[in-house]
Amino acid sequence: MRNILLIIEYDGTHFCGWQIQPQVRTVQGEIEKVLYRFTGKKIALNGAGRTDARVHAQGQAANFYLESSIPVERIPLALNPMLPEDISVKGALEKPMAFHARFDALGKRYAYQIYRGTTRNALLRNYSYHVTAKLDLRAMEKAAGVLVGTHDFKGFMAAGSPVKDTIRTLYTIEITEVGECLWLTFEGNGFLYNMVRILVGTLLEVGKGKMALDQVRSALTEEKSRVLAGPTVPPQGLFMKEVFYSNP
Amino acid sequence: MRNILLIIEYDGTHFCGWQIQPQVRTVQGEIEKVLYRFTGKKIALNGAGRTDARVHAQGQAANFYLESSIPVERIPLALNPMLPEDISVKGALEKPMAFHARFDALGKRYAYQIYRGTTRNALLRNYSYHVTAKLDLRAMEKAAGVLVGTHDFKGFMAAGSPVKDTIRTLYTIEITEVGECLWLTFEGNGFLYNMVRILVGTLLEVGKGKMALDQVRSALTEEKSRVLAGPTVPPQGLFMKEVFYSNP
Repeated sequence: MRNILLIIEYDGTHFCGWQIQPQVRTVQGEIEKVLYRFTGKKIALNGAGRTDARVHAQGQAANFYLESSIPVERIPLALNPMLPEDISVKGALEKPMAFHARFDALGKRYAYQIYRGTTRNALLRNYSYHVTAKLDLRAMEKAAGVLVGTHDFKGFMAAGSPVKDTIRTLYTIEITEVGECLWLTFEGNGFLYNMVRILVGTLLEVGKGKMALDQVRSALTEEKSRVLAGPTVPPQGLFMKEVFYSNP
Repeated sequence: MRNILLIIEYDGTHFCGWQIQPQVRTVQGEIEKVLYRFTGKKIALNGAGRTDARVHAQGQAANFYLESSIPVERIPLALNPMLPEDISVKGALEKPMAFHARFDALGKRYAYQIYRGTTRNALLRNYSYHVTAKLDLRAMEKAAGVLVGTHDFKGFMAAGSPVKDTIRTLYTIEITEVGECLWLTFEGNGFLYNMVRILVGTLLEVGKGKMALDQVRSALTEEKSRVLAGPTVPPQGLFMKEVFYSNP
């Protein structure tokens, strides 16, 4: 038996998210179907993190146990022709038997694309969030500086989420202009449910001049109810870029 | 009566091309439907050029006659909410009554995206052509130098096309690496049916070492049958970027 880690890319547009659910199309469900065809066995994938409907991934990671002796570098070539076109296995690695894609993840990188043109973008409609308001990027940089670090991010988690330990460390937030787009990139040791989308919503409120730096500080330190931080931006601008593991 | 030129962006994935046809979804058909709702009149759009199914546009141009006195800069804002999400009117200009988007076009720019990663790309599947072969970019640059200029491009036109005057001028071909992608950009005074896709196919044959420079020259100068040039690459990598007009 071998423990195989897959690095997976998908276009989230036509999926009801990562996690397998009855009767709807999910990324995990589609890959498990193919693993069943490939091995003749019911195989459970352990994903590093769940993504919501319409969220994309370029570096989702998921492990599973395999009995076949196929060379590990041939696994993507074997799976891709059986997978739907909106999923691509970009790589495969052999890991120690105890390795688990979620529990062994040291951190993750997410990126969020904002399209700033005056008229809506037909080509990026499924891959960006359209914001026409003027944005003060320097104020957003300052707010990013407040958010980076180890904090209780309870106020930046979807209301009703059952997670108890809400302390996370954000290593970096990068704000990059690329043509008419703005990319916000987040690296951290872990992210609560909807946390990236609420962080983006908060940075945008600051950029629009609707939220002061002090309010960002309050959302991190006081009360910790969901109401202080900015709104949750829509899913289609979000990309799961990478999951970090120690080697090997 | 006013003559209005629209600058149009669309994602060609779910269209049977630009030109209106009965019973299928076309870009021209969708816009004419909206113009009918907007004006209460049957309005014919003159497109600068036809694009095939799955071909995209960021700067398609089309004119029509309008009786309304709406300020021209408000036309995109009025049309976009009525249009499907995969079409966006990016701008509108008022033109002299005799202006025609096709007959007055001085030239066009097209770009073609090639994805060169080892595994297929789930996010770019509808916006690029996947080429895994190694490409000699210097040889492609040299072939581009042979193709640029005024030539009889009959050998670079889809077989069976009824056009008689097949002399065109290619002003520039640019080859640009962007991450794992290669963009081929073409500017010329006009393009025959499938010409850009055949030019890309020819440059790729050269890049793969399957076609010598002399063969490219022969395809331009000898016989002029469709068989000498390279194959027609698939439509989804192609973007109509801009149509050039004199001012005003």
